[in-house]
Amino acid sequence: MLDDVLKWIDDNLPASLDRLFALLRIESISTDPAYRESCGQAAAWLVDELAGIGFAASSRPTPGHPIVVGHHPGNGPHALFYAHYDVQPVDPLDLWETPPFDPRIVTRADGRKWIAARGAADDKGQLMTFLEAARAWKAVTGGLPARVTMLLEGEEESGSVNLKPFLKANAAELQADVALICDTGMWSRDRGAITTALRGLVAEEVIVTAASRDLHSGMYGGAARNPIHVLAAILAALHDEAGRVTIPGFYDGVDELPVEIRQQWDGLGFDAAEFLRDVGLSVPAGERGRSVLERIWARPTAEVNGIWGGYTKPGFKTVIPSQASAKVSFRLVGDQDPAKIAASFRAFVKARIPADCKVEFIAYAGNRAQRLPLDGPWLPRARAALAAEWGQEPALMGAGGSIPVVGDFKEVLGLNSVMVGFGLDDDRIHSPNEKYDLTSFHGGIRSWARILAALAE
Amino acid sequence: MLDDVLKWIDDNLPASLDRLFALLRIESISTDPAYRESCGQAAAWLVDELAGIGFAASSRPTPGHPIVVGHHPGNGPHALFYAHYDVQPVDPLDLWETPPFDPRIVTRADGRKWIAARGAADDKGQLMTFLEAARAWKAVTGGLPARVTMLLEGEEESGSVNLKPFLKANAAELQADVALICDTGMWSRDRGAITTALRGLVAEEVIVTAASRDLHSGMYGGAARNPIHVLAAILAALHDEAGRVTIPGFYDGVDELPVEIRQQWDGLGFDAAEFLRDVGLSVPAGERGRSVLERIWARPTAEVNGIWGGYTKPGFKTVIPSQASAKVSFRLVGDQDPAKIAASFRAFVKARIPADCKVEFIAYAGNRAQRLPLDGPWLPRARAALAAEWGQEPALMGAGGSIPVVGDFKEVLGLNSVMVGFGLDDDRIHSPNEKYDLTSFHGGIRSWARILAALAE
Repeated sequence: MLDDVLKWIDDNLPASLDRLFALLRIESISTDPAYRESCGQAAAWLVDELAGIGFAASSRPTPGHPIVVGHHPGNGPHALFYAHYDVQPVDPLDLWETPPFDPRIVTRADGRKWIAARGAADDKGQLMTFLEAARAWKAVTGGLPARVTMLLEGEEESGSVNLKPFLKANAAELQADVALICDTGMWSRDRGAITTALRGLVAEEVIVTAASRDLHSGMYGGAARNPIHVLAAILAALHDEAGRVTIPGFYDGVDELPVEIRQQWDGLGFDAAEFLRDVGLSVPAGERGRSVLERIWARPTAEVNGIWGGYTKPGFKTVIPSQASAKVSFRLVGDQDPAKIAASFRAFVKARIPADCKVEFIAYAGNRAQRLPLDGPWLPRARAALAAEWGQEPALMGAGGSIPVVGDFKEVLGLNSVMVGFGLDDDRIHSPNEKYDLTSFHGGIRSWARILAALAE
Repeated sequence: MLDDVLKWIDDNLPASLDRLFALLRIESISTDPAYRESCGQAAAWLVDELAGIGFAASSRPTPGHPIVVGHHPGNGPHALFYAHYDVQPVDPLDLWETPPFDPRIVTRADGRKWIAARGAADDKGQLMTFLEAARAWKAVTGGLPARVTMLLEGEEESGSVNLKPFLKANAAELQADVALICDTGMWSRDRGAITTALRGLVAEEVIVTAASRDLHSGMYGGAARNPIHVLAAILAALHDEAGRVTIPGFYDGVDELPVEIRQQWDGLGFDAAEFLRDVGLSVPAGERGRSVLERIWARPTAEVNGIWGGYTKPGFKTVIPSQASAKVSFRLVGDQDPAKIAASFRAFVKARIPADCKVEFIAYAGNRAQRLPLDGPWLPRARAALAAEWGQEPALMGAGGSIPVVGDFKEVLGLNSVMVGFGLDDDRIHSPNEKYDLTSFHGGIRSWARILAALAE
C-alpha cells in the first residue's frame, strides 16, 4: 500500500509542483500591512485545496491574518499538523535574480534543481509536502492512515501574536495525540533530521529621540545631541570583547548542554568552516570558547536586525536627525525568561539615555526556548520512517531559530511536537533568492507519506 | 535716490514674493538624481529673470547641474554675487505641515509672518533678496550703482563638486573687486550680521559588508558577523567620554580662538540655554569645557548624518544583514586638512574591521575652514549699510556650516568674500517646515539695495 502511495507521488510530482507554484505566487507577507489581502487570499486557497482532498476546512478569522483549520477522519492516532503560509518581506528586491513571487525551477550546471521563490522553503514548500502526502494517500487508498487535523498559520513571520489565543479558544477542537510541525531542516541533502531543541526569541524596537526636529549639522553640530551616536553607543555596549552579552542577568537560566546531546552533536560531523564559508565568512562571531554548533543551537544571542536614522538616500545631507531607531532581537536557551530579558534590555538602554533624550520601545512577541524528549511513542516512529526514506538514520539536531508554536502546543494542548522538515542550510530563507531543493520537496512528500503510515503502526 | 529705491521695494513687495514663490515651486533637489530636470528648470527660470532686468545671462552646463552666470554693467566697483538655487531633500515628508514645494505665507498668533517652503531660507529666499534689490535699482534709476556679475550655483547642497572647475575655466570672466555671498544668517530678527568665520567639511559614506547575503538570525545568530554591530562599534568609538573625537591626528591644525574674536563673541550676548531649548534640548553635547558658541563656530566635530542596515520597515524580521552603512561628516576649523582628515578616518575605520568583513568608502567633497579679514575696503561699507537698515551695528559672527565657495573664490579668483545673509536660527533649514521670515525677505532686499549703493561710495 505504502509503495503504491510512493509511486503515485513520483508519478504526480509535476502536478504537485504546479499547486506549490500557485501558492508561491500569492504575496502573503504577514508583517507588512500592505499585503493583508494577499494573506487572506493564501488562506482561502488552502481551504479550497484541503476541501478538495476531503478535509472539512475553513479559514478562521483572527485580529490579524486568518488561521486555516481542516479536519480529516481516520482510524489511527490523531495527528495535528502545523505549518505556516505567510512569508518574510522580500527586500532588498534588487538582489533577487528572479522575481520573488514568480516561482521557477532553476537547474544548476551540476544538475541540481531547485524551486526559486520567496516562501519556497519557509514555509510554503514545506507545508505542501504534507498536503501532497495526504493527497497521495487519499488518491490511492481513499483515506488517510491516521486521523489528521491541519492548522495553518498566517502570522509566523510576524510574531504569531494571535496563535496562542486561537489555540486556547479552540483547545477542544484541536486535541490530538501528537503534533507534527514542518518548518525545520534536513541535516544534509541526503540525510533527514528531527529537530529536538529550539532557541526562544525576544524582539524589541528601540526609538531614541533627541532634538524636537532634524537639525543642520553646521548650525548645531558640536552642541546638539545626535541620537545616532546615542544609539550606536548602546548597541556597541551590548557585547563585551569575548562576545558575551553584557545585559545584567542575561545569562540567568542558561544551562550547559546535557552530555547526551553534546555527544550526539559532536557525532554529526558538522563542518564549521564550510558553514561559514558558504556565506562568505571565515571567522566565527559570537561567544569565544564555544563551538560554532553550540553558538547557533545552544547559546543565547543579541543581534541588531535593523537600524535607521538620518539621511539614507543617495548623496549627502548634513543633518543631525531628531530620531534614530533599531530592531534588536535575542535568541534564548534553557530557562531564560522572555519577559525578564525584555525588561533587562529596556533598563540597560534607559540607563544609557542622556538627560534630554527620550526612548520608546515596541515589543514584538517573545517566547521561551524548547527542548523536546527524545523518547515517547511518536518520535521513534518518525525516526524510522525518515531512515527508510533517506537510507540513513536521521540526525537529531538543535535549531537556532524559534518556532513559538512548539511551546504553545505544549502549554495549551499538552502536546509534544515532532519537528520534521526538509530545508537546507543554503536555502536563503529570509534572504533574496530563497529556494527549496526539488529533492527536498519530492523527498519531503514521500517522507510524510511514510510517517503517516508509521504513526498508525 | 536710495530712498526712492527703498520705497519701490516696499511698494512692490507682493510682486517680489510672487516671483520667489515661483522659484520655490521648482523641486530643485540637487543630491537626488530624480530631480535633475527640476534643477535645469530652476536655472532656466533664473536666466529669464536676470535677462528681464538687463543682465546678459545664461545657463552654463557642467557635468552636474548648470551654473547660472549673468553680467550687468555699472560704473562703480565690480561685485561678484553668489547664491545657490538648489535645495535639500524633503524627507521625512510626513512631518511637513504644508507641502514643501507649495509655498505659503504663514501668519502666527503673534503677528509674525513667514514663508513656509523647502528652500525658503536656504537659499532661494536669500538669492532673491539680491535679485529683487537689483530689480529695484534698475526700475527706479535705469541702472545699478555697481557693476554686478551673478553666479548662481545648483549643487551647493550636494558638495559643489563642479563649482571649482567652473571657476578655474572661467576665471577671466568672473574677475571682480569683491565677492558678495548670501547664504548665512542674521544675529536676530532685528539685528543684521556679517559672517567672518566658517567651518570646513569632510563627508564620507562607509559601507561595511560581512556575509555574502542576508542571513536568518536563528540559523546563523551567534556565529555569523553582524555588520551593524561592527559599524555601531566604530561609530561609538569616534568620541571619547569628554566628547573629543578620537581619530589620531584629528586635532592637528586646530587653533585656539584669537582673543579679538573671542571678545567679540563674548559680547554678543548669546543665550546657549535658549538656543538648545528652541529645539527641545537642555544638555550641550560635544566637547566638555567649551562654550556652546565655541562648540558650534570654532571647534571641529564628527557627526553621523545617516545610518541604515537590515530590516527597517514596520514589523520585525530576524535578519543578520549582509551590509550596514553610515554617512559621517566632520566640521573642520583652523588649518585642519580635509584630505588628511578623510584619510585618518578611513584608517580608523579599517583598523576596526574584522578579518572577514570588507569596507568601502564614498567620498563627498571636503573643504577647509575659512576665517575672513575684518578690515579692507568692502566689509566696513557693508557693515555701515546693515547698521543703517536695521538700526544697530551688525554682529560679526562665526558660522558652524560650510560655504565652500568662500575658499574657492579666494584660491581661484583671489577674492575675499563679504557674507551677508538674513536667515534665522529657527528657519529649520535642511529640516521639515523650513521657513524664511517676511522681515528677512523684505529687510534683506532693502539691505542689499543699501549695500549696492555703499559699495560705490
